[in-house]
Parts: sequence; structure tokens; C-alpha cells
Amino acid sequence: MNIFDIKGPSDIKSLSIEELEDVATQIREFLIESISKTGGHLSSNLGIVDVTLAMHYVFSSPNDKFIFDVGHQSYVHKILTGRIKQFAQLRQYKGIAGFQKRKESEHDPWEAGHSSTSLSAALGMSVARDLKHEHFQIVPVIGDGALTGGMSFEALNQIGSEQRKMVIIFNDNNMSISKNVGAIDQNFTRLRTSKPYNALKVDLKDALSSSKIGNDVLNSMKSIKNAVKRNVVDTSIFGELNLDYIGPVDGHDLKRLIKVLQIAKEHDGPIVVHVVTKKGKGYSFAENDVEGKWHGVSQFDPKTGISLSKMPAGHKSWSEVISTTLCDLAKENKDIVAITPAMIGGSKLNNFFTQYPQRSFDCGIAEEHAMTFAAGLAASGIRPFISVYSSFLQRAYDQINHDVARMDLPVVIGVDRCGLVGEDGETHHGVFDIAMLRHIPNMILSQPKDSKEAQNLMYTAFQQNHPFVIRYPRGNTPYKKVEEYTSIRIGSWTKWTSELGNRLCVITYGDCVDKVISKAKVNNLPISVVNARFFKPIDTEMLEAICQLSIPVIIFETDIKIGGLGSAILEYTNDHGITKHFVRLGIKDHYVEHGSIPQLRKLEHLDLNYLCEVIASYL
Amino acid sequence: MNIFDIKGPSDIKSLSIEELEDVATQIREFLIESISKTGGHLSSNLGIVDVTLAMHYVFSSPNDKFIFDVGHQSYVHKILTGRIKQFAQLRQYKGIAGFQKRKESEHDPWEAGHSSTSLSAALGMSVARDLKHEHFQIVPVIGDGALTGGMSFEALNQIGSEQRKMVIIFNDNNMSISKNVGAIDQNFTRLRTSKPYNALKVDLKDALSSSKIGNDVLNSMKSIKNAVKRNVVDTSIFGELNLDYIGPVDGHDLKRLIKVLQIAKEHDGPIVVHVVTKKGKGYSFAENDVEGKWHGVSQFDPKTGISLSKMPAGHKSWSEVISTTLCDLAKENKDIVAITPAMIGGSKLNNFFTQYPQRSFDCGIAEEHAMTFAAGLAASGIRPFISVYSSFLQRAYDQINHDVARMDLPVVIGVDRCGLVGEDGETHHGVFDIAMLRHIPNMILSQPKDSKEAQNLMYTAFQQNHPFVIRYPRGNTPYKKVEEYTSIRIGSWTKWTSELGNRLCVITYGDCVDKVISKAKVNNLPISVVNARFFKPIDTEMLEAICQLSIPVIIFETDIKIGGLGSAILEYTNDHGITKHFVRLGIKDHYVEHGSIPQLRKLEHLDLNYLCEVIASYL
Repeated sequence: MNIFDIKGPSDIKSLSIEELEDVATQIREFLIESISKTGGHLSSNLGIVDVTLAMHYVFSSPNDKFIFDVGHQSYVHKILTGRIKQFAQLRQYKGIAGFQKRKESEHDPWEAGHSSTSLSAALGMSVARDLKHEHFQIVPVIGDGALTGGMSFEALNQIGSEQRKMVIIFNDNNMSISKNVGAIDQNFTRLRTSKPYNALKVDLKDALSSSKIGNDVLNSMKSIKNAVKRNVVDTSIFGELNLDYIGPVDGHDLKRLIKVLQIAKEHDGPIVVHVVTKKGKGYSFAENDVEGKWHGVSQFDPKTGISLSKMPAGHKSWSEVISTTLCDLAKENKDIVAITPAMIGGSKLNNFFTQYPQRSFDCGIAEEHAMTFAAGLAASGIRPFISVYSSFLQRAYDQINHDVARMDLPVVIGVDRCGLVGEDGETHHGVFDIAMLRHIPNMILSQPKDSKEAQNLMYTAFQQNHPFVIRYPRGNTPYKKVEEYTSIRIGSWTKWTSELGNRLCVITYGDCVDKVISKAKVNNLPISVVNARFFKPIDTEMLEAICQLSIPVIIFETDIKIGGLGSAILEYTNDHGITKHFVRLGIKDHYVEHGSIPQLRKLEHLDLNYLCEVIASYL
Repeated sequence: MNIFDIKGPSDIKSLSIEELEDVATQIREFLIESISKTGGHLSSNLGIVDVTLAMHYVFSSPNDKFIFDVGHQSYVHKILTGRIKQFAQLRQYKGIAGFQKRKESEHDPWEAGHSSTSLSAALGMSVARDLKHEHFQIVPVIGDGALTGGMSFEALNQIGSEQRKMVIIFNDNNMSISKNVGAIDQNFTRLRTSKPYNALKVDLKDALSSSKIGNDVLNSMKSIKNAVKRNVVDTSIFGELNLDYIGPVDGHDLKRLIKVLQIAKEHDGPIVVHVVTKKGKGYSFAENDVEGKWHGVSQFDPKTGISLSKMPAGHKSWSEVISTTLCDLAKENKDIVAITPAMIGGSKLNNFFTQYPQRSFDCGIAEEHAMTFAAGLAASGIRPFISVYSSFLQRAYDQINHDVARMDLPVVIGVDRCGLVGEDGETHHGVFDIAMLRHIPNMILSQPKDSKEAQNLMYTAFQQNHPFVIRYPRGNTPYKKVEEYTSIRIGSWTKWTSELGNRLCVITYGDCVDKVISKAKVNNLPISVVNARFFKPIDTEMLEAICQLSIPVIIFETDIKIGGLGSAILEYTNDHGITKHFVRLGIKDHYVEHGSIPQLRKLEHLDLNYLCEVIASYL
């Protein structure tokens, strides 16, 4: 059948294996073509085509609940649940999301964006089902990367204890975003290569071949279960956690996948189905990718695999400005080490990892541990730099507070992808970190306005002995290596004043600083613009001087307004007897949906044109 | 030797086993006697006496680093490192802390208070050691409860991969604070009873008996290691994580403990030494405790085991006010379930767990999973109540933000032990949660002023459909069951005004409200007192009315000032054109040490006498 005719999962339930295989091929072609135009998550979706088809063939969504961990691998699920025609607007403003979204479809019972939440959610749903005496299947799908996150372990621990009915699909591609790490992954490798499922297959050959797919399988369950137990249970960490286990299964063999899921479906209590898939399956460029370049992509030419997004000449991504500086500083300072929770590529730490392999640590998807590991290093005289996306840093709030800041340890935290990130949407916007960190004692919080300041802030961070945050956004910035590093006085702001005078002051930060200055120049605005490059401590001397001018002051924040820079300013001025009104622009008290960054800024009244209107109204 | 003569670990290194056993007996007697006067953590310290002695006998602190996970079981370590004479001031203001503290002793290389950080810290320290080409031992000591926290798993995953030298003492007493839960604990039970160490002992009998303790052990290491591998490795989850394992060992058999630690000391790479201990060992009341009553204790009669702290007549602890109300509400509302991360006793949920076993869930020390588990339940139409200590709630920041609040799910979060908690000190003060949660969209944050309001806030929380936080402090409050529940308008404050007029307004919350009112009555203060029972949303109507009065307004906060209630008020007034100065009293931007709550409040200028002085200065 033509995949554009799929209205819902029931449309594929009567197909033969051959027809399903044809659907899989069509879906892969569609994904490559469609994502090449819109950008999005490619490799993980190509890898899970057959598994998703088998899931929808065997189970009955929306009655049965599919929970895709993280959710970026739910495109095939979206196609099979009647959303194929919306793929032209994938991840675009008001288009379908790049993750499961409850308001988008009854087939999305859960939503995420951060890793390792699916098992906890599935346990919650299974308990709810049992309390209400309902009967349906709950099928979390979790990758090997997400499975090593601590939350997953906590959930498995309770799932093994509660023994609620649940089919956990362990999607093992030996990659999370880039190559996976850690002891447990070595353990999975052993499972992967031990082929216990093949052993099982031989044992159960007769039972399975003689049973029609369906109820008959139930009849042979007892012997199957015993055989499963005999053959594969207790060979893995799942056995240690009191979870029955079946696998590994070739995640691209539809016939076998269907059979195994049918067995799992009839199984009492929780069972882990281990499917081995190939990320990028069916698209050679993505299949051969070991660095994770094809995990999330922008527009590309499907024929050549060449990206259509071009880095402007003389630019670097903010991540690369930071990582390049880190490499440079690490030459002189042998105590510098780099830590990443599974984000070598995204954080552009590849060069550091190549140049300093002994001083590089990929902790896997484990922000909590990674941060306290950094604290342990810092407590021993090493100078760790840990790079974490703003949104994922939320996972390490307590480790920053209880371990790093409380002991006042000199960990340098690179907060990547801060502010609005665009198409990944509400789970990924890095808009909370200032408010999340500002009330923690001993913290120094900064954001550079340009690559020069970024380099000097990095230099400064390693010259001092307290927890030091440098945040920087997604995207690119003009780059030139500084000739000599300059230490920046902690807590100091800078100020630009128009030649036309200073009748109003805009306090802002990051790449907005130069943008507002340019706008002021072009529009002949008689204003000053403050680069509030520290959120904590703030430049109280400059702030007081500005307040004394008795001119309107606009605080222009590109993050959540509650608890942010504006609050810091209000707290200081109030507590020092300065009664001054500030015009505060920033992200309102809500979650911001997905869309392009310019669209979202406009939506939030954070575009420069709106700022100019506000400025005009006060001049 | 007399334990009061112990100046440091070297003093016990030349003792015989019999002398060490005598020291162990003296320490137990001392702990019971001393803690009966000061209060503190009793059971865990009684349980780890022999293990700590063996550690100090075999290793050489401070060169070798001992890291006690959580740290409340470090009393014996403190005694053996020359701090016995300071036990009279244990946990008192300016006395020694109840946890390891770096500034207290060179024998404390790390400090904690929250669970499951020791392994991450130990890995950081081992990497630092190796980078600096230093040679010393790192010995984290972690209980079975802390080991099931997700961070521990994340750390073990990397420890198994890095293979740095480290001796992990797994202190298995089948209790964290109360009885442990989860699949992994069942697994430990299997280990505990399988006695593989005895098998090992038989195999290695000759090797060990012929080798003098010391260098000779090294010579037999190869065969020992092979024997260990053959006998016990791969029988446990540690084997799955690529960690060598030895045990279980009787944690009260000093001779055997010393031998095993000596083997472990010579082992390459990380090794887990599994010691089985009895919590409360040597004190029958504590030994027979299954509820965790003897975990942390206040003053008691050592002869009878009877607590000397008395609940005033007609009072309940705040925890019990909440849990009693929960039980009552759950009678009518069958959808209510209770969740706790290993704090049934502390949160006073015992009755709920007894009355509603099918609706009660102890997730173990796993705040992250527990919160998302609650979200999964709420997404399925169940009404979860989850009780977490404020300080430990920090672990679940991302789960509250990404899972609960982003999907706007009706999880009721009981934030226990909020505000200053006293003797447990800086890791346990619950002073950050308002600032930590206030910037998260969709959240409703509240705190009752008394038990009546607590009951009605609980009722209100289950009448609405958003994430709802009710925070309440440590300690007791007068209690009377309300005759009928009354729904409280969300975001509404109440105001009391003195008959003498209203020349100044104090905005405060929690149990300070009635205390300030009493003070005003006694001192004839012409003021009004606002009960700001919601931190989000705030009562903007009342706030505007107060501002219109043009009287001094004092915001009296018992939590961290940055980002708290005062900030909410400043943000609102500024953004609505109200230029008003507020006098803000609250906890300054620093960590607060341990001491009694009255002492700490005074230190923070948060005692009522100081407030009265401030009031007087504005009247």
C-alpha cells in the first residue's frame, strides 16, 4: 500500500510480511526525502522503522500505549498514526513536533525530549491501569544510551519489584547520539554478540513454527517462558533486576520482530525485548556515521548527503569557540580536563578528545554523575570543564548546588544551547538556567557577547577558584582568536553610549548586545547599551550609576523573566534604597513551543523591532 | 587502649584483634551514651564500627581517602581521627558536624549529606590521582540504599569502564533508613544469603593462612584474583558492571574484615567489598528496629531507649498533619495514591501505607524516578501525592520541570522539612525550593500557616488540576481536625490588622504568621500581618491594596532571599508600575551551617526580636 494512504495503525494490520517490508522501504525513502527538506532527527528514525511497524502490527495503539524515550525516534510512529501529511511542517511553528506530543494525537500518551523518563512514566501508567482494573499494553521504547541514565536504573529497580505487565523494547544500536560508553555498554556488547536469541530460536523452533501467530502463542507460553528463562534470563543485567528478557532480535527482521513481540505481549509481568538495530539503516551516509553527525540534521542533499547549511566565512559555532579556547588553554594548563555527558559532537569537543585523550571524559547520558565527578576532580586540584546543554543541565541542579557550589569547588560549567533553541521546542529551550542557578551561593554566572569575550571569559574562569558558568547559545558567531587573553573582572559589565546622547539605557546580554547597538546606530537612537555579561555577581557600581541618570531603563532578557537578570537588578536596587522602575522584556511565565528562533522571539515580543518600538515609546 | 587516648588512626594500627574488639566495644558504648545526650545518627554508626576500624587498620588516612556516602555514618571515623572530645558538641552550633566536613579534618576529603554521591566523587579523585601520578587508596563506603540511587549506577557504569584503582565498600544492612525496596535489593538478598565468600574462603584457606598479613598477600594475589573471579565475580550486578567483587563478609568479624580489605587493597582496578552489617549492632533497641526509628534520634534514655523529646499535648508534627489529611482525603477519593522516595517514616506515611497498601509506593532513594513515576500516574488520571524533603527535592528539579510542570500534570508535591532544619546543617536546610520552583511555569506553590490551613490546602490541591506544592517545616504544630474542608482560592493571601491601626505591614508565611501576630499583640504594634500562603501565584489584589496604603512593608522570609517571595513581589510591583520600596529580611546568599533553629534564625537576623527592632525603626 501507499504510505500516504495510512490513516492509522489498523491500515497495516492486515498486510503480509512482504507488504510490511514494502511499507518499511517507502517510509525510509520518505524520511530521507522529507527530512532533507525540513531537517530533523534522521538516523534514529531510519533505525527504528521495522520495530515501529512490528509494534503497530502486534499492539493496538491508542488503546495500548507507546512511549518513545526522548521521543525523537517517533517519526515512524507519527507516519503510522495518520500524520504523514504534516511532515512538510515538521518542527516548524504550528507544525507537528519533533517529539511525541499529547495534544497532537491520541497515539501520544506521553511526551519528553529529555532522556530516560520512559520507564518511570510506563511504571506510573501501569500502576494506574491496574488500579483502575483496565487492560491494555504499555510499551516503552528505550535506547541503549537512555538506558544507562540513572533514572532508568531507578525505574527498572522498581519495575522489577512491582512486576506490572509491560513490554520494554530495548532498542540497542550501540549508539546514543554518538558511540556509547561505559561498563554497561560493554555488557550489552556481550549480549549483542552472544546471540542467545538464536539459541532460543532453535529450542523453540517447533513451538513457534507450529503455532499460528495469535492466541496459539499463549498456549505455548508456559514452555516458552521456561525456555526463555533457561536460555537467556540471568545472562544480563536485566536478570539481576528481576526482569524477564528476550533477545537479542534482529531489529530489521520484521517477521522475527513480530513473533517476538507477540510472545512478549502474552507474557505476565515486565519483559525486556532486546532489539538490535542499525542507526541510519537504509541510508549509507547515515549508516556509516560513527560520530553522530546524522543524528539531528539540518537541510541536506539526499543524493550526496551534503549539508545545505553553510557556516559563514570567519564564523564558528559558539560551542566551537568555547571548545577551541579550551584546547588552547589546556596546552598551558595541564590540570584542565574536559567532561561531557554523551555530547562530544554536539559540544564540539572532538578536537579536545583527540588532542587530550587522557584528559577527556564522556560520562554517557548521566548529567548527575558527570557533575559530581567534576566536583571530585576539582576537590583534588584538577580543573574540570564540563559542557552541558542548558536544558539538560536541569538534571544536575542538586549536584551543582549540593556538591559543586556548597563546597565552592572550581568547576567551569559550559552551558551550551542557552536561550531559545528553535525547532526542538519546549523541552529543549535553555531558558531556565539563569533563574535555576542564580539563587545558589558561590556561583558565578556569565555569558559573552561575542567570541572575543567568550575566549576571555574562559581564560578568566580558569584563573579563579569558584564555580564558574559560561553560557552560550546555539548558532554561529564571527570568530578570531584573541592575540592575548585578558582577564575580565568578575561581575563587571560594559557600556556603549551613542554619540547622539544617552536618553535611555538598554541592559541586555549575549549576542543581543551588538545587535541592539547596531540597531541604535542604524536608527539613530540616543541610547546606551549595557552588556550585562555577568548575571551573578552583577555590576552594582554601573547599575547605580545608570539609576542616577534618571533615564528610562529597559532590561531586555532572552530567557525566562522570573528570577532572571531583571530580578537580580530589582533585588539589588530595592535592597539599596533605589526606587526605580525598569521596563522588563523577557520570556513570559510559560513553556515556549517549537518554531524558528526569529518566529519565537517575535512571539515572545523579544524581536529587535519590538524593542525599538518600546524604546521609541519611552524617548 | 582507652578510646579517649586515640589521637589518630596510627594509634590503632599496632593493636591486636582482641584489642581492636575492645576498642569496638568502647566505641559502641560511647556512641550510645553520647548520642543519647546530643541526638544524632545512631543505628548506622553502631553498624559500621568494625568496618571503620578495619578500614583505619588496613588503610592510611589521610593519605588514603575515605568517602562515606551521605556521611551520617562517619562518627566512628571521627572518633578514630582524633575528634572524640568534640562529641559533646556534635551537630551543635560551632561544634563538629553530623557529616564529613572538609574544614573539620584532613581525614575528611569529601562531604555530603545527600545520598549516592560518593562513587562519582571517588571516580573524580581517582582520575585526579592518576593524572598527577600519585599513589594512594580511595575508599568510598556506600550503603545498599544509596547504591540504588540512579547516580550510583551512573558512576558504577563509568567506574567499570575506567578501571581506576578503588576499593568500594558496599555496606549492606538491608536497610537504608527504613527497610529497603526494589528489585536490586532482592538481588542483594540473594547475594547476602548465598555466602559466596565462604566458598572463596575454603578455596583460599591455605593461601591466606600461610601468608602473613601484609606484603605476602600481594604474592598470592594472582591466584586469589583468579579464585575470586572464578567463585564470586559474575554472580552479581557488579560483575555485569565490569567490577570485581568480593564478599559477602561478616561486617562485625574484625579479623575477616581486615583480611579481605588487605586483599582488596592490593587489587588492581576497582573492587567491591561486600560487607554485611547489622544496623544498630550492640544496642538491642536499635538492632530490633525495622521502621528506622533509631536512624536519626533526639535525646533518649540509654537504659530504656525511651525518647526524652515529648510531643506537646494536642500537637502533631507537620508531616503527620499532612499525612493524616492525606489518609482522610483518600477515603473519599479512591484515585489518591502516596509516593515516597525511601521516607515512609520521616514523612509519617506509615498509616497511609498500612491503610492503603495497594495505593502506596516507596520508590527507594530515587527522587528523580519517583517524580516522573508520579507524572506517569497523573497522566493516567490517578492523583498522586509525593512527599519529599525540600533539600532532597533538589534532585528532582528536571523531573518537576520537564515532566510534571511542562505537561501541567496534577501531581501534589508535599515539600517536607522546608526552611532551616537545624542540626543536620547546610546539606539539609530546605531553603532553596521556593526559588528553585517559582520560575517553573504552571506551578502552584503554597505553605500553610497552621494545621487548619494545611488541611484545607491539601483539600484544595486535590480539587484542581495543576502541579501543586505544599511545603511545611520540620517540627510540630497544634492540631485539630477540621470539621469540614474548605477550598482555598488559589493565590489568595489573608491579612490580620491590629486594633491599634495599620502603620506598617509585615508580609510573611508559614508558622511565622501567627508568631508575628502574637508579637504584635504583646508589644502593641500598630501593624498588619499578611499570610502569604501562596508564593505562586501571589495575591496581586491584596499586594496592590497594601502598596496603596503608603506604609512601610517588610517582607519576612525564612528561606533564601534571592528569587523567593520578595522577588515575586518586586517583579510584580515593578512590572505594574508600582515603585515601592520593600524591607526584605531573609536568608542571605550563602550556605547556613548547623546549629539549633533558634540559633540559626538569630544568626540570619530572622528572629522575631530582630524583626521587632526593624519594625520599631520604621514606625
